[in-house]
Amino acid sequence: MTLETVSEVKSHGGVQGVYRHASAVTGTDMVFSLFMPPEVERGEPLPVLWYLSGLTCSHANVTEKGEYRAACAEAGMIFIAPDTSPRGEGVPDDPEGAWDFGLGAGFYLDATEAPWDHHYRMASYIVDELPALVADHFPIDPQRQGISGHSMGGHGALTLALKNPKRFAAVSAFAPIVAPGQVPWGQKALGAYLGADAAAWRAHDAVALIEGGARLPELLVDIGTADPFLEEQLRPELLEAACAEAGIPLTLRRQAGYDHSYYFISSFMADHVRWHAERLARRS
Amino acid sequence: MTLETVSEVKSHGGVQGVYRHASAVTGTDMVFSLFMPPEVERGEPLPVLWYLSGLTCSHANVTEKGEYRAACAEAGMIFIAPDTSPRGEGVPDDPEGAWDFGLGAGFYLDATEAPWDHHYRMASYIVDELPALVADHFPIDPQRQGISGHSMGGHGALTLALKNPKRFAAVSAFAPIVAPGQVPWGQKALGAYLGADAAAWRAHDAVALIEGGARLPELLVDIGTADPFLEEQLRPELLEAACAEAGIPLTLRRQAGYDHSYYFISSFMADHVRWHAERLARRS
Repeated sequence: MTLETVSEVKSHGGVQGVYRHASAVTGTDMVFSLFMPPEVERGEPLPVLWYLSGLTCSHANVTEKGEYRAACAEAGMIFIAPDTSPRGEGVPDDPEGAWDFGLGAGFYLDATEAPWDHHYRMASYIVDELPALVADHFPIDPQRQGISGHSMGGHGALTLALKNPKRFAAVSAFAPIVAPGQVPWGQKALGAYLGADAAAWRAHDAVALIEGGARLPELLVDIGTADPFLEEQLRPELLEAACAEAGIPLTLRRQAGYDHSYYFISSFMADHVRWHAERLARRS
Repeated sequence: MTLETVSEVKSHGGVQGVYRHASAVTGTDMVFSLFMPPEVERGEPLPVLWYLSGLTCSHANVTEKGEYRAACAEAGMIFIAPDTSPRGEGVPDDPEGAWDFGLGAGFYLDATEAPWDHHYRMASYIVDELPALVADHFPIDPQRQGISGHSMGGHGALTLALKNPKRFAAVSAFAPIVAPGQVPWGQKALGAYLGADAAAWRAHDAVALIEGGARLPELLVDIGTADPFLEEQLRPELLEAACAEAGIPLTLRRQAGYDHSYYFISSFMADHVRWHAERLARRS
């Protein structure tokens, strides 16, 4: 699989790259960013933190505003930020152009309903195609992969980790959508991508997956108490209850006064990078 | 003087604000950003780092990409990012719409030539009006002010500090234009703002000011060796020679492989914040 370098820039001792490739899974070109820490010069495979972005974002938001490079350089951690949906000619969008569905809002699942099922296959892209491509081109240690994400990307991190427990050895999230089947953003997206039968949604709903027996070794979640989406869309108390019932050790930090933006995410990004680095180091 | 709050967001334990006010100096509304570290809760005046941005930028570029908040929160330092020119109805721009002159390119001087002399008065704005406004609304320690900047903003930091030695107790720059009278960007801007007589330019040229007897206690400058503007526009060797001749202690760091972007600036921002914090602490 070939990879086109869009840009490579030195930063924090490493290289911040942006890359484009033709995706067989989504049937489109896809773009992602990857930070390679200076540790690469030692010539050994490195741990990876996958970061899934939220509604409306591309790889660029966290790459510009996420403040992860200093911590990743210190931890010797590769940081990968994929896009949030397929894009380009022929890719259908929300019929009314809404920002919470369609382009920039793939919800990290494989759609089963037309017209979405042709291009919107972000689960297979994130779990299968992109890791294989990255492993072809960068010195990844496949045994040391962690996953995190923000909002819709927090939903993606939680559900993909719950469904692929051997893949991701560490999991965290910023302000995640924890129960899409119970909140407006998720009901709209899952209803369109997967159809009206809510039973099919449970395989893409972190709280439902935990209720159904899926497990994580442990979990770090930060949320801001001034997040305007907290009560209607995020509902961390549902995750808290599900983890308590299932015995999943959840570190849920309610960060006083923080909102939903990258000003919040960047404030705690270094904590998350270190959380992953500590847990991925155990496997090395 | 009244101040309108555009936004205030919690970040890194402090508050990242964006503010708007009517400027009597520029005859326009002006916008700036200010980060207030959590240290403010102790109730004492705090040191300030002024950061002047480069060509095409507004306050927003460094506010989003500068990665200064963690270091400022740790140092208890206020960080202020003004705009780079007046903007709005009636403000003239480059006749051909070029990005290196006019809007986004005020060069931190008071223009003397029409039509620029009416609004383009960024030196008076940065040195007089904005500090007075900020002191009215925030707990600034006027005895502990440092200044830094990038590219055109590095030129601004150096020249304003050289011309106001009692104002700024610490000075640094990222990839500064050090001798605008000798490089294309500067010759175009100074020629238009100040007229064709190059003698008038020397008061707005760091190397010429040092040659004329102006002094700084010491100076930190970072430049990237892969900066595409290095040889034609920045010419750090001219600053190096002028400082050597004048006996100004210059720490000039040629950072291998770095370019001119915020990926470079953010890599060394924490160093600069600490440099200023150490020197401003001496005055407390």
